[in-house]
Amino acid sequence: MAIVVPLSGGRGGRKRPSLDPLLHLIEQDLGAVNRVILERMTSRVELIPQLAGHLIASGGKRLRPMLTLAAARLCGYQGARHVLLAACVEFIHTATLLHDDVVDESDLRRGSATANVVWGNKASVLVGDFLFSRAFQLMVEDGSLEVLRILSGASAVIAEGEVMQLVTSNDLATSEDAYLEVISAKTAALFAAACRVGAVVAERPRVEADALESYGRNLGIAFQLVDDALDYSARQATLGKTVGDDFREGKITLPVLLAYRRGDSEERAFWRRTLEDVDQSEADLATAQRLLERHNAVRDTVERARHYGAMATDALALFGDGELKRAMLDAIEFSIERAY
Amino acid sequence: MAIVVPLSGGRGGRKRPSLDPLLHLIEQDLGAVNRVILERMTSRVELIPQLAGHLIASGGKRLRPMLTLAAARLCGYQGARHVLLAACVEFIHTATLLHDDVVDESDLRRGSATANVVWGNKASVLVGDFLFSRAFQLMVEDGSLEVLRILSGASAVIAEGEVMQLVTSNDLATSEDAYLEVISAKTAALFAAACRVGAVVAERPRVEADALESYGRNLGIAFQLVDDALDYSARQATLGKTVGDDFREGKITLPVLLAYRRGDSEERAFWRRTLEDVDQSEADLATAQRLLERHNAVRDTVERARHYGAMATDALALFGDGELKRAMLDAIEFSIERAY
Repeated sequence: MAIVVPLSGGRGGRKRPSLDPLLHLIEQDLGAVNRVILERMTSRVELIPQLAGHLIASGGKRLRPMLTLAAARLCGYQGARHVLLAACVEFIHTATLLHDDVVDESDLRRGSATANVVWGNKASVLVGDFLFSRAFQLMVEDGSLEVLRILSGASAVIAEGEVMQLVTSNDLATSEDAYLEVISAKTAALFAAACRVGAVVAERPRVEADALESYGRNLGIAFQLVDDALDYSARQATLGKTVGDDFREGKITLPVLLAYRRGDSEERAFWRRTLEDVDQSEADLATAQRLLERHNAVRDTVERARHYGAMATDALALFGDGELKRAMLDAIEFSIERAY
Repeated sequence: MAIVVPLSGGRGGRKRPSLDPLLHLIEQDLGAVNRVILERMTSRVELIPQLAGHLIASGGKRLRPMLTLAAARLCGYQGARHVLLAACVEFIHTATLLHDDVVDESDLRRGSATANVVWGNKASVLVGDFLFSRAFQLMVEDGSLEVLRILSGASAVIAEGEVMQLVTSNDLATSEDAYLEVISAKTAALFAAACRVGAVVAERPRVEADALESYGRNLGIAFQLVDDALDYSARQATLGKTVGDDFREGKITLPVLLAYRRGDSEERAFWRRTLEDVDQSEADLATAQRLLERHNAVRDTVERARHYGAMATDALALFGDGELKRAMLDAIEFSIERAY
């Protein structure tokens, strides 16, 4: 018998899934991570902390470092190494964001992609390089070759994924598999590595590290799928983000691939014009949303996300029940349910 | 009594300094480095080896990996680890070149900087990221935290140096000290690290590692000073490179700083227009060269390089005489004398 409880309602009631329980449990650790980030992104070259701080402060949810912290604690880790390594994870993430901001002349001509408008391409690249190098310096300070192996490997995979995305961009012939490969590489690899690092500092058996890596990887895929769905959803606006960014850039994401495959020839011509040729007018976004709706493309993208969410959930089965595990499961639910 | 010998003449004769003796002594090692580079820059994402190969094959002199190889051998190293690590050094160097190719819209408007014209900014950045990550993966494979410390530190310093250069670009008020700081960071740091890594794999006492690092750092500064001088020298054309690239980009280098400081108010106005405002016409490069000549600015830049070359020479004093040491000293002479 379901009972209606307020959003802030007690455990056991049905409430909207949220990151808050996880945030609450690792609050102190996360505070320490933020301090390390601020301390270690300094440089006597002022532009570096300025530019990096802009991105890091305006900061996202710190989801990736949270995963390192949570994974370590779930493995019963009692030390402090996970804090420094969570900061490394955030530095690597920030570096990839900065490099993702880089645009080509052709993009500028289209009038899109102005995230790096304040400082320019070159500064974004170089400050990204600094943060990336700094992350490796911090890992060396920590001294675990295993952690270095995990995060240098993830970084290489992320770069490969980004190049893959570049190559397949504006190409509606991209298969769903190819799309999945791109998001596995560019997003899920760092989620997976962030979790594995947590298990590694706790010096737990390989099977636990594998389980946490699997949790991270599947959570990352689910997260990205929902991100891609949200870009076309009115819900996005309520989260304080612009709707249609991917559309305007001609990015090929799963909602579009589904609608394209399910559409008739007229619809396909629409997608080709707007996404392959990036020849768009005012009303096109609304049309795109209507076509996605017609073919349940956003809904089915979130359904795909549920599949990965279920795998992430099962990955945690070998850990005993407890507050932290429940909070980590809640993070999966949150990643998916934020679509609504 | 000096005797004239052909350029390929025997030892003891006065011949033009060259990298050939060094190349000859480490030829086999360098062949092995090239094989590692080709093997390890592969990726199932084809654009990566394509783009990286373009730069690596069209390849420079492989000066930096040569330094790692030579330093290791000078320390009596008999193993094979230096080959993999020399490849890391070249990957890091190539990554910084790719990132240095990135341009801003403003540069494109000026019509300069078309090095990344084939693949675009974004591809240059991402492939650079891949090579950078791959370098760290190779270091992890090697397994020395000390090497990881040296090269992650150098990478952070390089990025800082590049940002510093960006901040001081088009600013004729840059001091000679600030200029030196930039080239120490963006060029000499990797020369220094490349050499130190060689000593570290040989497991030699710290004093030898310090000496080789100092050799590398001073050689790097001399090398960059001469590069900056050559950009305005007719000699550059005979080396198969374009004259005036720095000028057209409005880069502030030592020859210009000297001529600016030594010039009268009319000359300073010329430099401000051409380099700060980057407002240039056809005849301006010739005028710039005339002004540099008038104030001996190119000659004195090479004189400064000699100073650092002398320090690099003295740094090797603690190593016993031998073919390899003589070849490494010759590399200093070559770096400077190529100006003529």
